[in-house]
Amino acid sequence: MTRFECDYTQGAHPRILQRLLETNMEQTSGYGTDEHCERARGLIRQACEADRADVHFLVGGTQTNTTVIAALLRPHQGVLSADTGHIAGHETGAIESTGHKVLTLPHQNGKITAEQVREAYEAHLNDGAKEHLVQPGMVYISQSTENGTIYNLAELQDLSAVCRQYGLPLFVDGARLGYALAAEGSDVTLADLARLTDVFYIGGTKLGALMGEAVVIMNEALKRDFRYLIKQRGGLLAKGRLLGIQFETLFEDGLYFEISRHAVSLAMKLRSGLQELGCGFLHNSPTNQQFPILPNALLEELRTKHTFTTWEKVDEKHTAVRFCTSWGTTEEEVDELLADLQGVKQKEQMPADALC
Amino acid sequence: MTRFECDYTQGAHPRILQRLLETNMEQTSGYGTDEHCERARGLIRQACEADRADVHFLVGGTQTNTTVIAALLRPHQGVLSADTGHIAGHETGAIESTGHKVLTLPHQNGKITAEQVREAYEAHLNDGAKEHLVQPGMVYISQSTENGTIYNLAELQDLSAVCRQYGLPLFVDGARLGYALAAEGSDVTLADLARLTDVFYIGGTKLGALMGEAVVIMNEALKRDFRYLIKQRGGLLAKGRLLGIQFETLFEDGLYFEISRHAVSLAMKLRSGLQELGCGFLHNSPTNQQFPILPNALLEELRTKHTFTTWEKVDEKHTAVRFCTSWGTTEEEVDELLADLQGVKQKEQMPADALC
Amino acid sequence: MTRFECDYTQGAHPRILQRLLETNMEQTSGYGTDEHCERARGLIRQACEADRADVHFLVGGTQTNTTVIAALLRPHQGVLSADTGHIAGHETGAIESTGHKVLTLPHQNGKITAEQVREAYEAHLNDGAKEHLVQPGMVYISQSTENGTIYNLAELQDLSAVCRQYGLPLFVDGARLGYALAAEGSDVTLADLARLTDVFYIGGTKLGALMGEAVVIMNEALKRDFRYLIKQRGGLLAKGRLLGIQFETLFEDGLYFEISRHAVSLAMKLRSGLQELGCGFLHNSPTNQQFPILPNALLEELRTKHTFTTWEKVDEKHTAVRFCTSWGTTEEEVDELLADLQGVKQKEQMPADALC
Amino acid sequence: MTRFECDYTQGAHPRILQRLLETNMEQTSGYGTDEHCERARGLIRQACEADRADVHFLVGGTQTNTTVIAALLRPHQGVLSADTGHIAGHETGAIESTGHKVLTLPHQNGKITAEQVREAYEAHLNDGAKEHLVQPGMVYISQSTENGTIYNLAELQDLSAVCRQYGLPLFVDGARLGYALAAEGSDVTLADLARLTDVFYIGGTKLGALMGEAVVIMNEALKRDFRYLIKQRGGLLAKGRLLGIQFETLFEDGLYFEISRHAVSLAMKLRSGLQELGCGFLHNSPTNQQFPILPNALLEELRTKHTFTTWEKVDEKHTAVRFCTSWGTTEEEVDELLADLQGVKQKEQMPADALC
Repeated sequence: MTRFECDYTQGAHPRILQRLLETNMEQTSGYGTDEHCERARGLIRQACEADRADVHFLVGGTQTNTTVIAALLRPHQGVLSADTGHIAGHETGAIESTGHKVLTLPHQNGKITAEQVREAYEAHLNDGAKEHLVQPGMVYISQSTENGTIYNLAELQDLSAVCRQYGLPLFVDGARLGYALAAEGSDVTLADLARLTDVFYIGGTKLGALMGEAVVIMNEALKRDFRYLIKQRGGLLAKGRLLGIQFETLFEDGLYFEISRHAVSLAMKLRSGLQELGCGFLHNSPTNQQFPILPNALLEELRTKHTFTTWEKVDEKHTAVRFCTSWGTTEEEVDELLADLQGVKQKEQMPADALC
Repeated sequence: MTRFECDYTQGAHPRILQRLLETNMEQTSGYGTDEHCERARGLIRQACEADRADVHFLVGGTQTNTTVIAALLRPHQGVLSADTGHIAGHETGAIESTGHKVLTLPHQNGKITAEQVREAYEAHLNDGAKEHLVQPGMVYISQSTENGTIYNLAELQDLSAVCRQYGLPLFVDGARLGYALAAEGSDVTLADLARLTDVFYIGGTKLGALMGEAVVIMNEALKRDFRYLIKQRGGLLAKGRLLGIQFETLFEDGLYFEISRHAVSLAMKLRSGLQELGCGFLHNSPTNQQFPILPNALLEELRTKHTFTTWEKVDEKHTAVRFCTSWGTTEEEVDELLADLQGVKQKEQMPADALC
Repeated sequence: MTRFECDYTQGAHPRILQRLLETNMEQTSGYGTDEHCERARGLIRQACEADRADVHFLVGGTQTNTTVIAALLRPHQGVLSADTGHIAGHETGAIESTGHKVLTLPHQNGKITAEQVREAYEAHLNDGAKEHLVQPGMVYISQSTENGTIYNLAELQDLSAVCRQYGLPLFVDGARLGYALAAEGSDVTLADLARLTDVFYIGGTKLGALMGEAVVIMNEALKRDFRYLIKQRGGLLAKGRLLGIQFETLFEDGLYFEISRHAVSLAMKLRSGLQELGCGFLHNSPTNQQFPILPNALLEELRTKHTFTTWEKVDEKHTAVRFCTSWGTTEEEVDELLADLQGVKQKEQMPADALC
Repeated sequence: MTRFECDYTQGAHPRILQRLLETNMEQTSGYGTDEHCERARGLIRQACEADRADVHFLVGGTQTNTTVIAALLRPHQGVLSADTGHIAGHETGAIESTGHKVLTLPHQNGKITAEQVREAYEAHLNDGAKEHLVQPGMVYISQSTENGTIYNLAELQDLSAVCRQYGLPLFVDGARLGYALAAEGSDVTLADLARLTDVFYIGGTKLGALMGEAVVIMNEALKRDFRYLIKQRGGLLAKGRLLGIQFETLFEDGLYFEISRHAVSLAMKLRSGLQELGCGFLHNSPTNQQFPILPNALLEELRTKHTFTTWEKVDEKHTAVRFCTSWGTTEEEVDELLADLQGVKQKEQMPADALC
């Protein structure tokens, strides 16, 4: 059984685990005040070309989204997000639990546009009863998105410009940021994110760490007292070094980018193979998540050898599913998956030129 | 420099790290649904002699306290706690951030009594304006306490009885539970806790794990939907196996208790040594935290070789400090600490029979 | 200038003000414990044929919705509501401010169906990742709705049945309940509401009171400690008698129903008049709110003599607006409004058979 | 039976009710946008000599405290208050329900000092683990206090200075502000409050209105979007005119001050009479609340003719109680109360020179 259902099916990249072993007996202070965290912060600032960034390490994505958003909003404000945004649908109301509404905009390929933000904000400003409405107070996007798609530089620049015009902080959820940076056709760098956003995070959990997300804060107002907020939300890990050591390893010699390229490259191989089998896709993703549409007839047999996520019913006979690659995925596993699909296709006597 | 300031200055117990290495390449499902978590839950149920307990793994203590307490209370209720309780003073208002007041009772050696709970609850019931007050909705205690002290079985039984009489769930914060179980004179077992409380947790972070706390739920109402609550509070670790593997290792052959005994035994050695040096103590602790009162004159020099926590000013010339032992503390480190104290004492020409 | 923009443009029905005058110098206890509140509670129980109902008086609608909903839900739960529901759009995120998401369903004439509730709940139950989603915890509807429409008895019975099947409390926002009871074709009584719901409220503010809403609780679990919750949300009026006296007056000899019939009857007259002028309607409302579609060309002139609410742009040349009638609306005002419309229509040389 | 248990036992001052009658049929816009509210805001600005103040009308005290405090604090901050403060003890955890801790300081006669605020804030700043603590984010005081005492001008100036030094907004709960302004020996004016605080409110409920509190905001940051916050907390009364008309009446020709003087003058008469009877007092109050210590022996008989509040047990034989005067209290009622006390004293054969 090989697992493709998500990008966190295994432990940590071996170099990370090795480093945890090497440093295990060191005695350090707690709560992220140790030297490993300090060095990791420096490496991340460097990678972002952002000397003045504040960098903090939190444990997980939901916690990070909640902490950042609750820190930025006043009580009557909400956060603009694509309706497919992770905070809108898959965090058990964590944002609402801090008192704030998620104001959804209809997504386009998992993304929202500067124009949508402008329209939403102007509509609010011009509503005669606006004090009876939740005020948009910030913008949340994901890079890559829930659909595996990415914002290009021009799109990010437009979003940034409209956010700055209206005084709306822009926050990028980077749970899968590495895969977006390594995506086919990506023209966005960490330095661009630092320059164009108020705050973003560099995901570790889905990129080879045991767990951990590195929040990069550019907005001065948000920097103030941020450690209090991390503590209050339960994110100030006692053995904070555990996060520092992992991000140190990921950023000291490019491992973060290496892992990203590895997973994206295998995802592209998988995509090509699926296309050759005549397969269509729910989303056109240049990153490590692939969303092929498969005939229901072959899903059951495929499940006996591989795990994947059922995404959405497409029609009576077809279902879109998700396959993810990660640091631990091997070329053999992808080949085997494709071979198995080919086998089932033949067995079911499907047309040579089409899986669907 | 040896570090005694807390019980989380090092990584994980080597057997835990070893197990993480061995299992690293296994592919498992996420969010605590894997086989390691399942096995760990079984081992903990067994250790607690509680077949019907629900066991969940969360990342840290503040998160665990917040998740449990917010799950148990209705909006108008608060949680009774010693005024020294961790939730009352050292979690940046995490409980209040979920909408609930911490109702403090004056501690006695870090503890509260069944009688105090009874009085507080009766006082509430008999207050003519009680609807203008926060209603006590549950009781929170720590084992061991912030002062290093422990509840004995009779005290726990009394608390449990009064809680059940009034319908107040009893929750035990076990961040340092192992040290309490291994304490000199302890007559409380995990099975007692399971029998006498509604919910408690077995701390991993301070007992040799990289991080992690195992919540044991006995109360049926609290069991319902608890995983939603963990997710909402950011505690549902994607690579949940990381917690399962650690608790599996801690509980499969008694490592949890071994670590606890090791640390308590060294703490007792430290306590004896300090007593022989003529030292007094702020709290009389039978566990891994020791709170000696030291002359300010020697603190500065001691700090050049050892770290510890300044606890409280006792008088103009004396300060109470905290030393903690843990799985990683060695007998040599304790000997060295005592020798250094002896050295400073001589250098400062203190009386032979008194450090203070 | 006559005001039709809402149903709270004037003070209180004269009989209510008269009663406040008569009782002004009486000395009573506070917070709703006085005899007027007690009598009003009895009258409402009687009107609802619900001896065991708990009745509480709160000041306003947003406060009432927030207090009831926050009292019913556990932290991970949300409230199902039509996307047009007042709590979804016009309370500045009050529900979210208590930690809960409003789970919207697409409305049909301002209403939701039992089938929609069933589908939403079943979809939740069957979602493999349901613990990552907000759990539906109750159902909120309005009678009459934001669109002026009403649920008939069969619709309410179906909703009640599906709610009971799934253990979802059913809450009816009755800010305009009187108008629904008095609506053309209504077959629902207060006793039906008491029988079919867990909790509902009888609006006073929009039905002739200075302010005030009477919450009727049937659900035993919600009854417990409800006064604490009212106090916490700022709804326990010190001079609670003010609410008691008003509801006493409204319910001792049918004034509540008299006011409702008066306003609905004038709304029906307005509707007929508009129809005769060839006017179409955005919603087909049998209650005191009417939503005609008018040519933009005549809105400006109409505004010089009457106030009303701009509701929604229909096309480039037409806008839907809202007119409300209330206890204070007179037949002369309705006649004058219709005459003015007729005048503008002639002036603008519109076809004899159509306003639009 | 005459009622002295609080200052809200009757309806409204007759001139207020008269004005409500006169304006009842006027048609106005809602939510505080009408002309009466506008005029009342102007009159209050004038009375406060504060042209740039923002003035808002809310319904009750708990709601006002909650709205202001939640608007001023970031999530990790709490509010400094006397331990006797209304928000600390008598609002069912309303402040905590918005996520914030009330940080209590030991009161002195119901008050806190600038020095206490300084010490608390410095202690926080200098705590090595301060990020684990709730950060003091503002200061809350009451004028008059829960004990009936008042801050004099020098005390207020000192508090204001220390608050400004540390950037802590100063908020004055003025539920009984009129009585403080009219107190014996008061040297504080509304203009002083406007000059020295960031925000305060002028209570109506306890000063002759049916209900209503006027919030005066001087702090620019707090002014922004405050109406959204009022709406979210359920305080934006639909018939807002009801509040405007009442404050218009209270402030157009000094009725607010007249009522205050009347009640304080009768309270002073009551105090003198009690002193002549040999009575001691729990608090030395120069305002409308009096806290005499009475022998338990006579309380029961007194209760057959007068209501009052049991405040606190003083010793086995004595109890402190509270009597309040208000706009509706008459000199005859005070005389009668004193006569009844004199009668019981004789009947119980108490010494001529002592009630206690």
